[in-house]
Amino acid sequence: MKCKKCGKRAVTSLRAYRLSLCGDCYLDFYRRLVERSINKYKILKKEEKILLAVSGGKDSSAMASVLSDLGFEFEMLYIDLGIGDYSRESKEKVEELSRILSAKLNVVELKEYGFTIPQVRGRVCSICGNAKRYIMNRFARENGFEVVATGHTAEDIASFYLKNIAGNQQAFAEKLLPRIEPFDAKVVAKARPLFEISEKENMLYTIIKGIPFKSGECPYAPKPEWKEIVYDIELRKPGFTKNFVRGLLNRDRKPMETRYCSICGEISSGEVCSFCKIRMRFSSQSKGF
Amino acid sequence: MKCKKCGKRAVTSLRAYRLSLCGDCYLDFYRRLVERSINKYKILKKEEKILLAVSGGKDSSAMASVLSDLGFEFEMLYIDLGIGDYSRESKEKVEELSRILSAKLNVVELKEYGFTIPQVRGRVCSICGNAKRYIMNRFARENGFEVVATGHTAEDIASFYLKNIAGNQQAFAEKLLPRIEPFDAKVVAKARPLFEISEKENMLYTIIKGIPFKSGECPYAPKPEWKEIVYDIELRKPGFTKNFVRGLLNRDRKPMETRYCSICGEISSGEVCSFCKIRMRFSSQSKGF
Repeated sequence: MKCKKCGKRAVTSLRAYRLSLCGDCYLDFYRRLVERSINKYKILKKEEKILLAVSGGKDSSAMASVLSDLGFEFEMLYIDLGIGDYSRESKEKVEELSRILSAKLNVVELKEYGFTIPQVRGRVCSICGNAKRYIMNRFARENGFEVVATGHTAEDIASFYLKNIAGNQQAFAEKLLPRIEPFDAKVVAKARPLFEISEKENMLYTIIKGIPFKSGECPYAPKPEWKEIVYDIELRKPGFTKNFVRGLLNRDRKPMETRYCSICGEISSGEVCSFCKIRMRFSSQSKGF
Repeated sequence: MKCKKCGKRAVTSLRAYRLSLCGDCYLDFYRRLVERSINKYKILKKEEKILLAVSGGKDSSAMASVLSDLGFEFEMLYIDLGIGDYSRESKEKVEELSRILSAKLNVVELKEYGFTIPQVRGRVCSICGNAKRYIMNRFARENGFEVVATGHTAEDIASFYLKNIAGNQQAFAEKLLPRIEPFDAKVVAKARPLFEISEKENMLYTIIKGIPFKSGECPYAPKPEWKEIVYDIELRKPGFTKNFVRGLLNRDRKPMETRYCSICGEISSGEVCSFCKIRMRFSSQSKGF
């Protein structure tokens, strides 16, 4: 299998794009993918003071690396949740990433706020998520950052959306956007530069580029049931995840222009209604228009 | 297994409600389910002139029967699509239903409009859907009906929604409501009395009550891929389908009241923010609030 761009040996075949690429051409392809997305949805501006929330996982590490490649300047924030070896190894990865990218790494320990994740009983993920959002926002504001970027992927967005709609949490579902401007002086803008990028695309980028990241799930992570549902739909309907997250953005309801079919007089979106267009294909036996 | 209501032998066990019921109690349960839904979403009014679109299938037959039980008056419309034995047998079922319910049956043949479904090449389902919507609306208006009710189920709504969002057809997705008022004088209101009722619930009702219906798919029906996705999610997350369609209704975004946590001063939805509430559980080592 050869690279469609340069003819070298391909290392990956992207089904959704019908594209086989070698390592270098994939890196280039991925950068353009993220760049296009950032421009299209106005996710980040180069002149902003940007803070990247990094966990040491593949997605936020890919985000940091690609933003650096694209010429964005930023600092990084690692929140140490105090989860034993898992937190220690994750922190080592972001320290390595920080050296490679020459980007300043800030570390906040949840412990400073009086507790660590292993001490939490019940609803661990919800409490951890709340703590991370709180610390991210407070740290960013107190240190003069204008926007916090997180490594949420298309799969995260799609699975959050389904979960929240099914749980009657529309307010949360409505917040799943590539960028959210602050609604209050105490809130910093949030950005999701990988909003329409898939986990597989991030994974390929980190592996081909040799970006350090910690593999493996958080020991407290439950079975990612909603995400597995998204993976399954994607398997059956390739392209679903990206189309779905893009679909979430076009919520504006265009006021429908009321027109009437020039043939039958019924309501129509054009000069002739779709039903009459079909009828015109069949000449005989018509009831009359 | 005994009926939870009357102690007789149960014929069905409803997992979502943790309820085992005998035949009579199930019929009663189903009627209340539909009645509550109609009242909650103001789907139909008794004083309206109602037209039911019936296909001979289990869902629209269940709709006609339960609306009759609930004291609604209506006429029915069967659209003969000219699909050989399938259409003939379906029509026999709605004729039988019409006699049982003493409800007038109107029949419109697609042939009168110049073609039948077997003559259509390509995009059969889309053309058939368009034709049915056209005929339903035109027949209803020309005959003085105020509302057309269709037998769409929770599974139909959920699968249409996912399909349309993934296909970037938000305009269609937004129309998936229990009732749509006319936006023009040529358009009749549309109602979906089974909006949050599942196919299984309709099936049980038709079988226990002995309502005539035609089983089997339309010979032109493609593999119902999106609906199978919904069935699969339901299997993994019992209750998903109903919760999802209900979730689609609460789209109003409440303006968020901006408050500040009385302990740390960060943004909060209540007097004390959730993060400080968690911190309060852990007394020692606090960074100070």
